[in-house]
Amino acid sequence: MKFRVSSVLEYEVRSPTTLILSIHALRTPTQAVLEETFTTEPSVKMEELTTAHGENRFVRLEVNEKTNLAISYQATVDTRYQVIAQDQLEAVPVVELDGSVIPFLFPSRYCQSDKLYRLAYSKFGDIQNSYLQVVAITDWIYENVEYLSGSTSSQTSAYDTVTERAGVCRDFAHLGIALCRALTIPARYFTGYAYQLNPPDFHACFEAYIGGQWLVFDATRLAPLNGLVKIAAGRDAADTAVASIFGSVVSTGMQVDCQVLGKGFVPFSRENAHVKGLSFSG
Amino acid sequence: MKFRVSSVLEYEVRSPTTLILSIHALRTPTQAVLEETFTTEPSVKMEELTTAHGENRFVRLEVNEKTNLAISYQATVDTRYQVIAQDQLEAVPVVELDGSVIPFLFPSRYCQSDKLYRLAYSKFGDIQNSYLQVVAITDWIYENVEYLSGSTSSQTSAYDTVTERAGVCRDFAHLGIALCRALTIPARYFTGYAYQLNPPDFHACFEAYIGGQWLVFDATRLAPLNGLVKIAAGRDAADTAVASIFGSVVSTGMQVDCQVLGKGFVPFSRENAHVKGLSFSG
Amino acid sequence: MKFRVSSVLEYEVRSPTTLILSIHALRTPTQAVLEETFTTEPSVKMEELTTAHGENRFVRLEVNEKTNLAISYQATVDTRYQVIAQDQLEAVPVVELDGSVIPFLFPSRYCQSDKLYRLAYSKFGDIQNSYLQVVAITDWIYENVEYLSGSTSSQTSAYDTVTERAGVCRDFAHLGIALCRALTIPARYFTGYAYQLNPPDFHACFEAYIGGQWLVFDATRLAPLNGLVKIAAGRDAADTAVASIFGSVVSTGMQVDCQVLGKGFVPFSRENAHVKGLSFSG
Amino acid sequence: MKFRVSSVLEYEVRSPTTLILSIHALRTPTQAVLEETFTTEPSVKMEELTTAHGENRFVRLEVNEKTNLAISYQATVDTRYQVIAQDQLEAVPVVELDGSVIPFLFPSRYCQSDKLYRLAYSKFGDIQNSYLQVVAITDWIYENVEYLSGSTSSQTSAYDTVTERAGVCRDFAHLGIALCRALTIPARYFTGYAYQLNPPDFHACFEAYIGGQWLVFDATRLAPLNGLVKIAAGRDAADTAVASIFGSVVSTGMQVDCQVLGKGFVPFSRENAHVKGLSFSG
Repeated sequence: MKFRVSSVLEYEVRSPTTLILSIHALRTPTQAVLEETFTTEPSVKMEELTTAHGENRFVRLEVNEKTNLAISYQATVDTRYQVIAQDQLEAVPVVELDGSVIPFLFPSRYCQSDKLYRLAYSKFGDIQNSYLQVVAITDWIYENVEYLSGSTSSQTSAYDTVTERAGVCRDFAHLGIALCRALTIPARYFTGYAYQLNPPDFHACFEAYIGGQWLVFDATRLAPLNGLVKIAAGRDAADTAVASIFGSVVSTGMQVDCQVLGKGFVPFSRENAHVKGLSFSG
Repeated sequence: MKFRVSSVLEYEVRSPTTLILSIHALRTPTQAVLEETFTTEPSVKMEELTTAHGENRFVRLEVNEKTNLAISYQATVDTRYQVIAQDQLEAVPVVELDGSVIPFLFPSRYCQSDKLYRLAYSKFGDIQNSYLQVVAITDWIYENVEYLSGSTSSQTSAYDTVTERAGVCRDFAHLGIALCRALTIPARYFTGYAYQLNPPDFHACFEAYIGGQWLVFDATRLAPLNGLVKIAAGRDAADTAVASIFGSVVSTGMQVDCQVLGKGFVPFSRENAHVKGLSFSG
Repeated sequence: MKFRVSSVLEYEVRSPTTLILSIHALRTPTQAVLEETFTTEPSVKMEELTTAHGENRFVRLEVNEKTNLAISYQATVDTRYQVIAQDQLEAVPVVELDGSVIPFLFPSRYCQSDKLYRLAYSKFGDIQNSYLQVVAITDWIYENVEYLSGSTSSQTSAYDTVTERAGVCRDFAHLGIALCRALTIPARYFTGYAYQLNPPDFHACFEAYIGGQWLVFDATRLAPLNGLVKIAAGRDAADTAVASIFGSVVSTGMQVDCQVLGKGFVPFSRENAHVKGLSFSG
Repeated sequence: MKFRVSSVLEYEVRSPTTLILSIHALRTPTQAVLEETFTTEPSVKMEELTTAHGENRFVRLEVNEKTNLAISYQATVDTRYQVIAQDQLEAVPVVELDGSVIPFLFPSRYCQSDKLYRLAYSKFGDIQNSYLQVVAITDWIYENVEYLSGSTSSQTSAYDTVTERAGVCRDFAHLGIALCRALTIPARYFTGYAYQLNPPDFHACFEAYIGGQWLVFDATRLAPLNGLVKIAAGRDAADTAVASIFGSVVSTGMQVDCQVLGKGFVPFSRENAHVKGLSFSG
């Protein structure tokens, strides 16, 4: 499926500043970036970075003087996904996990899985199949946490959300990840553009590693899984912030858009989720 | 300098279990493992893993039945370090940082740098030189946090320690890392064997990225920096646990040792630290 | 019912010290202290205090020199309680609550009810009768929190326990209180001697204000409610510590005992709890 | 000194609701309420409550139907205070404290003094005189915590503020109280009207018990101490909320005012604080 994604970020830059942005569509075997443009007004020095931690395409900008900075990104992206029957999605025992996956078992800044073992096992420990465990986690979050804009901050973590029971997509994802890791299921944070997300914005959900691949889950139910265009995957929001800013800067505006190109988009049905999972892995 | 390091870990394994150990001396351009032996009694399936997250040599063990398991590691290691004058140790601006270093600016499970900005800037923001900032952080921790065995747990984080003012080497390191990151200095957790550490144990301290290399710092002052033999570096203790255990296991014993081979070990003097840093980087 | 209660506390006092103890059986209209002895060895200056915050009989000791201090308390206590049918136990609306009860609606050190509103309402909000709400809270804690000696510290609060799911009687009580207050049911911490508690120790549970009186609840199920001899009631453990110590002191021993006098003690059955509550109020 | 204080609170009441307000000027031996009016529009059932916990004059309102509610309070208040030389302000040893003062040594919801012992002693433990300790605490908070509207929430506590270093009057007061209690100085939360506070609002500061009386301290330096008109004193903000609301209500407006009557108001100089304290106690 082809998508047209775009974002515009506007800043008032008050001092020499470095910005590290995570807004580019990722290039993967299943996600082709057919064309893209990235511009800033005024023009500033930019550079693309890669790290070995998770998947991302950081762009680093250097702004040397006070200015009003407008950043525009547009891309046409072709995504491909697999739908996998639940009965093929068994847990990978730790003893068989690839070394690159193991760090996603460990707790991270916003996903304190080490504090959630008892709770996770008491709620989800009796479910035999790992895929169904994650479905149950996702359903539980949807049913028990209220989606409430403005209820949380950039410091809110899964440990807060599991009790306070309110948050936004970021918080839903962190709690999902923390509960998975507490059950020894590798899980990571997924950021992207999301078709049919209303109001339009960057979106966050999570991936869990089951049956040898990363399956995508979204406890918010705010957008169809097959309408996602991936920007980055990391341990949690600390790895994948839309903008990490080193300098004195005020955000003055943001617009995000994601449209499908062509007809025939059929949303991946959540009703199916109990029997089929969706993966953007090859 | 050559060191003879060893560790013995003993466990009562009560169910089929996977253990991921981080006790091997790392192989780096400046740390040669001249010889090493790793044995378990009884013999179990083992495998060495690598991840792209930090530096480590995880060993994964598969134990399929109830048993008393003894794990023994011994190695002869040749380490080399540089001593660098403070005036060559300027901060690397974010705009010049290598992509592989950037994740060590982000907060992590035990190092919530995002909550420590104001405190870090008020205490250390006036110091111009980055190396001297980290020296000041290290001194401040030494002077303000009491080393107190048993005062903390595996859930204790820098956010706790900065207020509660007691902890062990792990807590001292986490607080140092968090304060560095809050000042936009990349920092990572360092685990190793430590000559002259008393009582002998695995040790933890931290590295900060200054002047284009990783410098090592130890706020505990419990062992000379040049007596360290590196096991792993990671974001924090979540990445570098001595043993991550997936199964029902009780620890029944541990011995750690680190001896220098040959004569002439001259401890790197802490009094020098204000003018010279020590790096195990090439 | 008559009880013989006793406690011995032993301390090594290393500096001039003031101790505030809360170990005396309370005197109330339904709890008569028939006789009691309180002695210390060596003899020190002592004084009984009362405060208007909660119910208690603090005893303050002044120890002016280094010594090994042994404190002994023994009492014969006659307690009387009411058993009240559930259908007489309706909530008292805030608009009718006595001013002295209102502070027990507010959050306190270990009972952060302000963080538990959503959780409390989602779990217990559909239960119409207040008494049955508290029974459901008590059952839920019993079923979801593991009683595990040594798993918590004096800093552990309800906000921790609701997620970490392990604790001791103090933690069970704090969580019960916090959930009640989150539902606008006044609740307070209850400390006492407890017949049939095994191993013998001071005990903690809680009281909720329903139907115009304080009903007692114990989520641990470790001792019969009608075998309790009350020492104090307060907002939480901060108000009712067995010993608050101002000086350099090491605890060297403690024994607690509670025996029924005479025959015919019939434990108040928990099975009855769903239809009948127990109150030590007049 | 005579003051004219007033407040208007406006609410949209969406369901039957009980409000407990703490906006009345307190009546004490040193604070005479010469005249006051309290009205609501529409008229609703109201009742004044007292509790033995702290000092307050709660007013409870019963609103039985949906309405826009306007609450108006006006009073003329005559306050009297003592200025006491520092050298008369010695600590009261715990062994001599009145029972009614002792609860203000204990930690409370927003003042976790039990977590601040080491920090408080390391910073302020060397100061011999208790009054000067509290002056030092107050100065330290002023110098190290940024007054920043909107930076904190109703859940923010002293444990957060000591590290995050930003807050409003409530947070400054909580931190002052927590540090005092950690040093075994009884301390309580003080709410009031404040002359010359800009912008006008309800104010919070704290009292510490030294030399046998409650001395008032304000780490914000936003209003002169002798321009305060006391509303309530309690353990912390949990005891003294301007409005505790039990029902579905939206706040739609608030105005607060405090004017001095007559001429000749001489602000109590902070420069004097190091040698003289101010108390509203008799």
